[in-house]
Amino acid sequence: MKEEFSKRISDFSKTLKQNGIDVALIMQNTDLYYFSGTVPSGALAISDSNDVVYAIRRGFLRAEKETAIPTDSLFQIKGLSQLPKLLHDRGIKINRVGVEMDVVPADMFLKLKDIFKDSEIVDISFHIRWQRAKKSPYEIEKMQEAARMLDCTMEDAKELIRAGKREIEVSAELEFRARKRGHQGRSRMRGFNGEVFMGHVHSGYRSAYPSGFLKPTAGIGPHPSYPEGASFEKIEENSPVIVDFLANYQGYLSDETRLFVVGSLPKELEKAYYFCKDMLTWLEEVVKPGMAAEDVYNQCLSMAKKAGYEDNFMGIKGNQTPFVGHGIGLELDEFPFIAKGQKYALEENMTFAFEPKVAFDGVGAVGIENVYLLTKEGAKPFNRYPRDIIYL
Amino acid sequence: MKEEFSKRISDFSKTLKQNGIDVALIMQNTDLYYFSGTVPSGALAISDSNDVVYAIRRGFLRAEKETAIPTDSLFQIKGLSQLPKLLHDRGIKINRVGVEMDVVPADMFLKLKDIFKDSEIVDISFHIRWQRAKKSPYEIEKMQEAARMLDCTMEDAKELIRAGKREIEVSAELEFRARKRGHQGRSRMRGFNGEVFMGHVHSGYRSAYPSGFLKPTAGIGPHPSYPEGASFEKIEENSPVIVDFLANYQGYLSDETRLFVVGSLPKELEKAYYFCKDMLTWLEEVVKPGMAAEDVYNQCLSMAKKAGYEDNFMGIKGNQTPFVGHGIGLELDEFPFIAKGQKYALEENMTFAFEPKVAFDGVGAVGIENVYLLTKEGAKPFNRYPRDIIYL
Repeated sequence: MKEEFSKRISDFSKTLKQNGIDVALIMQNTDLYYFSGTVPSGALAISDSNDVVYAIRRGFLRAEKETAIPTDSLFQIKGLSQLPKLLHDRGIKINRVGVEMDVVPADMFLKLKDIFKDSEIVDISFHIRWQRAKKSPYEIEKMQEAARMLDCTMEDAKELIRAGKREIEVSAELEFRARKRGHQGRSRMRGFNGEVFMGHVHSGYRSAYPSGFLKPTAGIGPHPSYPEGASFEKIEENSPVIVDFLANYQGYLSDETRLFVVGSLPKELEKAYYFCKDMLTWLEEVVKPGMAAEDVYNQCLSMAKKAGYEDNFMGIKGNQTPFVGHGIGLELDEFPFIAKGQKYALEENMTFAFEPKVAFDGVGAVGIENVYLLTKEGAKPFNRYPRDIIYL
Repeated sequence: MKEEFSKRISDFSKTLKQNGIDVALIMQNTDLYYFSGTVPSGALAISDSNDVVYAIRRGFLRAEKETAIPTDSLFQIKGLSQLPKLLHDRGIKINRVGVEMDVVPADMFLKLKDIFKDSEIVDISFHIRWQRAKKSPYEIEKMQEAARMLDCTMEDAKELIRAGKREIEVSAELEFRARKRGHQGRSRMRGFNGEVFMGHVHSGYRSAYPSGFLKPTAGIGPHPSYPEGASFEKIEENSPVIVDFLANYQGYLSDETRLFVVGSLPKELEKAYYFCKDMLTWLEEVVKPGMAAEDVYNQCLSMAKKAGYEDNFMGIKGNQTPFVGHGIGLELDEFPFIAKGQKYALEENMTFAFEPKVAFDGVGAVGIENVYLLTKEGAKPFNRYPRDIIYL
């Protein structure tokens, strides 16, 4: 365990060195956990020479009990203004200081600029996210367990979905069983305004309802103040029911979608579903490390156009999302994004959710989703639940 | 409904005028919902002359269906760089532009500074939060319903808590029943790294375990990656069990804590509990609009010292939180904070949770919490569940 965390720090330290950054200040919960094994608030300073200082404002006693960072690197501080002296006394240079500028709020950033007034502040978000995109064997094991838990959720859904039941009743019971299985409850997203609960159960026209976020099929949700997931409406016969759920095992997420139907499905929707399912097979046969993320997306988009789903792929017309997958791990919105404009190449040990979906305005949506590990041989699914439509 | 939202906008417009701010750009989910009734991402511009422009990047179709903003104020944009022209064409000045600098990330802030390069950017966080602290009759009604739901959760806890049951089993079933009652699931916090699930069930020494966040009794949680709430450990006889839960009704929160015991409680803990309970009575008898928030806190602190709880009040020694209450509404961490250094006076129609707690290292914690509405006559509790220790 200690080796896992010290390798994360030393790898990142090398990245800092390569980029001429003296020290990184890690302040966001997920990143703090990733590098230290605990999340008490403060700043975890990682230097380009592999030294580390965890300056803790709140929760020192907790950090002491949990962290993988050596005790002589833990410091209680009253405020961030103590950081320059603390780093100086440790022999850490602060000419170029890295900050997670994608998550640190503007007012805190300005305060840091003031505290480090003779330093150049640079953004280290990409470097952190790029390292976190590639998973270690330790992380892959956690994600395997999350996927296994989530397969059980799909089996639960098979048992629970009935015509006449409210979407929220099914969702609540899936959540309940998942929690008893050890689901941590809260899952993290990184992007500004990014939010998610435990997953979505939605059906009929609600699955194709336009989302206010960057999500292809999000459902109506209980109320405009939380506009996604299950509504209070009832599941109907002969109409698609989407279960798009998360699992969270020790911080690591899995994300899986399956399609359920009470009765039978209109042929048009069935055809669209098998188009999505075939896209998973295509992914598994074709995608290898070295392919650009946007190339994968563009090929999916071409397939959708060719199949006549130009106005339905990844959402209804006017609400389509320009992606077909997203990296996943400690956060739901990690690199790589299998999306428009993502020019970087996919690398070995990246993990991502792949979720082709097709939506028909006023009717419903269909789709499937698994989380994948990219290996030398190709994309290997973590999730193992059978892929056909589940007729009830 | 439309009147509710247009009053929120016109009130805020007056604040902008008073502070010499030409236009506010509202971008955060909660604030977007508060002013528009929907959350599709983009920027809601409110001018000092009560004009409004909702520039939507994502989810225009959703916004159209849900928002209280007039249709001729809705615009589809591709990026924030279109904002200056859009505002100019509308006749809105942009010399001083307000931004939610407490939540907008640094990189987005720098982008906005670049887009509005001839404008002065100022922080409007406080103005928004101060307005939102005082609730309208519409909001008070929602908070009443949330409190009613939460009283049912306490009744559920009475039925569910048993010695030998795991904390997470009890928590999962409370969550399940709350969800079926219409709890929205996800609840919002505003502060950087602020996070919360549906509530906490913890017992014995775990209730006094040091928190890494600014929370007095948070529990160990399932894992260091999400270090609060229920653990997988079992509830024991003759040991305090804390149920500190949230309800969320149409975006509005309630927050309530009650103490349960299977068997009997050591006299020392029982005494500490009734000290906390008496503090609620004190609040209800003494606190009125016009009192400074920090004075309320300081008086509580004095009472705690006098009673011998100097090292136990609001957490164990070394992990004590310098507050005894927090504003609540659409977010869990609103104004007013009944806390150290909060010099402003409490005002009529403010709503806050008041949560005196006493913790004993290695033993357990006790405490009670209600949400209050401050009226001319004093603090009126929303939550009605009986206040004595619930012996099972």
